[in-house]
Formats: sequence, structure tokens, C-alpha cells
Amino acid sequence: MAVHLRKLAALGASSSVAHLLPKPKRPEKLNLLAAFAVGSVRGVSTCSADASASRLDGGNGTNYQEFLRCPNGGGTFHESACIDPTALIEVGAVVHPKAVLGAHVHVGSGTVIGPAVTVGPSTKIGYNVSLGNCTVGGSCIIHNGACIGQDGFGFLVDESGNMLKKPQMLNARIGDNVEIGANTCIDRGSWRDTVIGDWSKIDNLVQIGHNAVIGKSCILCGQVGIAGSVTFGDYVTLGGRAAVRDHVSITSKVRLAANSCVTKDIKEPGDYGGFPAVPIGIWRRQVVARGRS
Amino acid sequence: MAVHLRKLAALGASSSVAHLLPKPKRPEKLNLLAAFAVGSVRGVSTCSADASASRLDGGNGTNYQEFLRCPNGGGTFHESACIDPTALIEVGAVVHPKAVLGAHVHVGSGTVIGPAVTVGPSTKIGYNVSLGNCTVGGSCIIHNGACIGQDGFGFLVDESGNMLKKPQMLNARIGDNVEIGANTCIDRGSWRDTVIGDWSKIDNLVQIGHNAVIGKSCILCGQVGIAGSVTFGDYVTLGGRAAVRDHVSITSKVRLAANSCVTKDIKEPGDYGGFPAVPIGIWRRQVVARGRS
Amino acid sequence: MAVHLRKLAALGASSSVAHLLPKPKRPEKLNLLAAFAVGSVRGVSTCSADASASRLDGGNGTNYQEFLRCPNGGGTFHESACIDPTALIEVGAVVHPKAVLGAHVHVGSGTVIGPAVTVGPSTKIGYNVSLGNCTVGGSCIIHNGACIGQDGFGFLVDESGNMLKKPQMLNARIGDNVEIGANTCIDRGSWRDTVIGDWSKIDNLVQIGHNAVIGKSCILCGQVGIAGSVTFGDYVTLGGRAAVRDHVSITSKVRLAANSCVTKDIKEPGDYGGFPAVPIGIWRRQVVARGRS
Repeated sequence: MAVHLRKLAALGASSSVAHLLPKPKRPEKLNLLAAFAVGSVRGVSTCSADASASRLDGGNGTNYQEFLRCPNGGGTFHESACIDPTALIEVGAVVHPKAVLGAHVHVGSGTVIGPAVTVGPSTKIGYNVSLGNCTVGGSCIIHNGACIGQDGFGFLVDESGNMLKKPQMLNARIGDNVEIGANTCIDRGSWRDTVIGDWSKIDNLVQIGHNAVIGKSCILCGQVGIAGSVTFGDYVTLGGRAAVRDHVSITSKVRLAANSCVTKDIKEPGDYGGFPAVPIGIWRRQVVARGRS
Repeated sequence: MAVHLRKLAALGASSSVAHLLPKPKRPEKLNLLAAFAVGSVRGVSTCSADASASRLDGGNGTNYQEFLRCPNGGGTFHESACIDPTALIEVGAVVHPKAVLGAHVHVGSGTVIGPAVTVGPSTKIGYNVSLGNCTVGGSCIIHNGACIGQDGFGFLVDESGNMLKKPQMLNARIGDNVEIGANTCIDRGSWRDTVIGDWSKIDNLVQIGHNAVIGKSCILCGQVGIAGSVTFGDYVTLGGRAAVRDHVSITSKVRLAANSCVTKDIKEPGDYGGFPAVPIGIWRRQVVARGRS
Repeated sequence: MAVHLRKLAALGASSSVAHLLPKPKRPEKLNLLAAFAVGSVRGVSTCSADASASRLDGGNGTNYQEFLRCPNGGGTFHESACIDPTALIEVGAVVHPKAVLGAHVHVGSGTVIGPAVTVGPSTKIGYNVSLGNCTVGGSCIIHNGACIGQDGFGFLVDESGNMLKKPQMLNARIGDNVEIGANTCIDRGSWRDTVIGDWSKIDNLVQIGHNAVIGKSCILCGQVGIAGSVTFGDYVTLGGRAAVRDHVSITSKVRLAANSCVTKDIKEPGDYGGFPAVPIGIWRRQVVARGRS
């Protein structure tokens, strides 16, 4: 619960989440209300408190009965989710327990919002998106098929050669005004949260490994690959299919040419290209020389 | 509505869409019928007109109540969708308002057909596919998880450094007999429709940016990346993970080796390879020279 | 049915699938029980035999009526599926006819389990996963959006220049203790089953073509691409975005650097890099030489 509250507080601080109200009979939600008191709570009702929400059919006392149909769009949500009445959950979308959706959030058909995921106000989520173990800020756009918050790729080999999974227990945190492309993947963190800074824009089919921290206003074009534990400053731009090795840091205002691959830290702003990536002038000479050979 | 009609007319022209009938009480659908009169309308009934379709449960006058369950497969569709009675919508699929599904279309579970999307006859769509802002021709195969018609990746930086989204308002148009691989992404257009020509075949995890125009009978192997506003002729073949820079044109009957990257227009048919891509013989000499160094 | 039985026998042999019981009134399921007799069948009941499962609403004798709501999670399954009572099918997931889910399988919301797919015990499947034409072993983890078992990419050009689809009729077989990343694609086989060996770990956005045979304890990092009919030994490790050409064989205990591309068979264990991939020492000298030019 502590984590859940922390997330909500963070959401309240960075975004204006209004109209979120706990059901009176759930005392832990009163704490949520307190958390939102620092924000701008203007309205006080949720789908789950709303008499217009209808129970799913069938059942005999089993847990799925706690899922309700949202009158605003026809999607399915758990009764413990905290959903602003202006949020729209389309038919075929599922919102899991304790998720929090802010005002004017739009959840497309087929999208799954996992347990305790929070989504800030005015964020638009497309079809068949998968969100788990993450927070998403306000005014974001998440396109069809994007996957956020699944386990990162970390294994240990034991003495008998078997691969053991390293714990992947932290979250992915997406800032405000972020756009995330179709079928892009952002893993949850293991030793620190994976972070996408405000105003960053990510194209389709991009891979962002666990523990990556991407600054503000970064641009990642299609098919970019960011390995685990990478750190970016702000205003970093990656051309199509650029790649960054794990644990590499790139300072602010670096631009990488398409197809380049960064293997060492970049500490000076500027333009880079090639594999391994070098300042753009050097890379251009390499390309010319290769053409001559 | 004009756009919607245009789409239908186009569909009727290139494919034989039969068995599509408007509900009498919806006057705009009569226009659709007129549009199809140039085609071969043989049957006249829709799921939505069919007494065998059942209303979703629950509800109190809200919009999701306009969704019905298709007797042929159990999927969900909006009452304003125009669905051929031979179309199969599997359980868990969702068809949004004003979508049009031709004869013998098969929509797999978890797939979402967005508003006003049209799908030509005999097209088979797998699981968890996301279609929006697009038309799909007849006899296509769209594999699991493919995403078609989401916004392209276009931004402007304003004076204060914030990134503003450029409008992405046009469509993606998929021809007849096209195959689209799993988790492949095709963005909608901004200044012209994104187009995939008839008989073109696209493998898995391919990225096709906004405004790209791909000709007929092109082959795009796995993980290929096509940036925005690219133009291809016909019979263009791209090996695995080949890439094409934005705004580049490639004439017909060009073949690109796997992993190659095209940065300038290609005006002569033939085989090319490397980064930047050059005629295949030159590229092979470069590879040999690199091996010697 | 023969194929179905073979799958079950294989599952029974490699994994301990318990608690699977046919409904008495379905004689073919008795054969399944016989198949499991070689395994360790400890319990005998299924969701479908369970009086607590509820019929989906609506309907008038059409086929979707054969789908039921699982009391354990609220997901949807076909009455001919064979589901262990300890399996959890979340709301919004769909399990198709004759699928088999072992003990403690967890199927996330939005996931589709296709007809006759078998999933071994304790396997966890995320959100919006698409499984068809495949068997998955026990104790696997399949992350959000992964697609397994769709058709591979194979075409013939006929005399008039049209592309004809080659038959893609075999399966994908995933071993035990395999992890498969988000939005990764694994195609079904055409001339032999596509196979992922036990304990292999696959990251996000990886493409594995039809007929590929990956050995045991292999590691495939993010955005790797494996073309069709590739064969790997055991303990093969591919760095991020490494690629392997079709029909290439790689012996056991080979490691490939990130971004490398293998075009010929590798018959000696060791480390390799570059495009075309060469032993790692040679590749490093090439990189140094390129930097000097």
C-alpha cells in the first residue's frame, strides 16, 4: 500500500488528477483521498461508486465478480480501481484492481491496465496496449500494442548451468506529455525504476531495457534499441534504429545518426554516428574511405 | 461521411464486396448501398439487422449498449457497423462504429477494428491485431499483433523548446492480397495516405512510417524499417532488417541485401547492399576489403 | 486428432501436468486421459466439467455459446478446452477449443490461446499474448504482446508474377523454463517445427523465423533476428540485435557480439562479431582499422 500511495502522491504532484473519489466503505481509499488533497480534487465520484456501473453477468461468488462494466465506454474494471467519471474505458479494455485513471483518460479496446497502474489526466491509450508495474503521467499518448512494465532481461547462471531469473521488482515511470509508439516495449526496473522524462517522444518498435533513464524532450525514432541501465540527459535525439549499449551514459543535447551504435559514454553534446559511434565528422570520413576501398 | 463513402466506393471497385446491407432505419446506410451498387451486391442483410444478434448485458442507456454480440463467432460489434453475415468475429474481438467487414472476413479474438475501418472480402485477421484509420483490401492476411493506422511520428519544436505534435489525420490503405506479419506497424498518413500495394508481402516486426507508398508485389522481410514519406515502385524486395531513409524513392525491381540501408534515391533496377547502399558488386568488394584490413 | 494427442503425450513426458480431466461425455477426451496416464495425473476435474463455470450471456444456439466464463479469473474458454482447475484465466483472456492448460498456468487479460494449443504447468503468460499452432512447456514466462505460432514468411512467384503462399502447417514448440520477451514473434514451421529449447531466454522484439531450431539455454537479447530454418546448438548467446541468415547453423557455445550478422555456418565454439561475423579478435582489428581510415 505504501508504494501505491507514493505513486498517487507523485501523480498528484505532477499532474492535476481530479474527480477521483474512494468508496466510503473502503478505508484505504480514504487515505488516497488524503493523498489527493494536495492536488486539485474537484469532484468526488468513481465508476465503482456509481450506481450506473453494472456487474458482469454469471458467477457464484468468485473473484471475477468484482469486475464491473464501465457505463462510459463499456470496458471492464475492478471495483477497487479508482476511475475518474470522465475517463472512457472502451469495450474490451480491462482495468485491474487498484489502478487509478485520471480525468479524461481514454483507454482503447483490448488494452489492459494492470494492478495499481496509475494513468494521469488526459492521457490517450490506443488498442491492445499492455500496462503493468508502471505509472504514466498526464497528456501522454500511448499507441496500439505498446508494452510497458514487463520484467527486464536479467539472468544468472548457477553452478549447474541453469539460468536463474534476477528479480525484476521495480517500476517504469512515464512522465507527462510523452508519446510512445506502436508495439514499443519499456521494461520495468530491477535496481532503479525505468524512467521516461516529460515531453519525450518514442516511435514504433523501440526497445527500452530495464533501469534505463531517459531525460526530458528526448526523441527516439523507429526501431531504436536502448539496453539496460542506460542514462540519457535531456534533448537527446536518436535516429532510426540507433542503439545504445547497456550501462552507457549520454549527456544532454546529443544527436545520434540513424543506425549508429553507442558503446561508450558520450560526455560532450553534439552529433555522432557509426558503430562504434564517433563524432559525426569522423564517421563521415570513415564512410567515404570505406566507399573508396 | 464523405471519406467513409469514398472508402466504400474504393473497396467496391477493387474487390467484390457482397452481402452488405444497411439497416433501413439508418438513411446514411442507404447511401452505402448505392455505393455498392457498382459492385456485386448479392445478399442483403447484416448482423446488426439480424434478429439473432444479442445485446450485451447490463446497462442503463449508455453508449456501450449499442454494441451487440455477433452470432457468428461471439465477438462484439457496434450496431452501426456494416458486417456481412458470412463474416466471422471471434469471441473477444471488437468492431467499432461504422466499420465495414466484407464477405467471409475472419476477425480473430482480441483484435480491434476501429471506427469506419473497412476490410475487404475473404481477408483473415489474426489475434490482437489493431486496425484504425485504415482500409484493408480483399484476400489479405494480417497476422497477430499487427498495428495499422496509428499516428505517425512527426513533431515540431516550438520557441520554448516544447515538442508539438504535427497533425496525423490521413489513412493507411492496404491493397488486395497483401500479407502483413506479426507485430508489424504501419502508420497512417499526414500529407498523403500510407499505401501498401496489391500482392505485397510484409514479414514480422517491420516498421513502415507515415506517408510511405509501397508498390505492388513488394517483399519486406523481417525487421525491415521504412521511414516516413518513402516511395517504392513495384517488385521491390528488401532483405531482413534492410532500412530506407525518409523521403527516399526506390524504383521498381530493386532488391536490397539484408541489413542494407538506403540513404539516397535508387533510380536503376538491380541489386544493392551496404550502408549507405551501393550496387551489390561494389558492396561485395567493400566487404572483402574490410575483411583484409 | 493424432497431432493433438502427440502434443499431449509430449507434454506429459516432459512436464508434470496434473489435474487434467476429460468430461465423461466426450469420448475423445478419454483418449487424452490415457495419454496422460504416462504422466502424473493426480487430480481429475476441469473447468468445463465444473458446475461453477457460467455460460456467456445471450445467444440462440450459435457456436459462441460453447464458450464459458472461468470461475477462476473470469476469462473465457471453450467448453472443449481442457483446463486444470488451478489454472487462472484473467478477465478478457480467451481460450479456444481443445486448448490444454496445465496446473497453475496463469493467463493474463487480453491473451488469446488458440485452438489445440497446450501450455505446461506453472507457465505464466502476460497480457495480449497471441498463441496459436504451438505447444508451450512448463514453468515458462511469456511476456506481454508476444506472438507465437503464426505463419512463417514463405512465398513462390508464379508464371504471371503473382506471389503464392507456401503452406505453413507445422507448429512452434517451446520447451520448459523458457522466457519470451514482450512483442517477440516466433513463427510456426513449414518443413519442420520451430523449436525453442529448454531454459532458453529470449528478450523483447526478437524475430524467430519458421523452422528455426534453437537449442537449450540459449540467450537472445533484444531485437535479435533469426531468419528461417536456422539451427542453433546449446548455450548460444546473441547480443542485442544480432542477426542470423536463413539456413545457417551455429554450433553450441558460440557467443555473438551485439549488432553482428552471421551469414555462414559457425562450427567452432567461441566469440564472434561483425558483419559478416568473424572471430571476435579479427572483428576488433577491423573496427580499429576502420577507425584509422
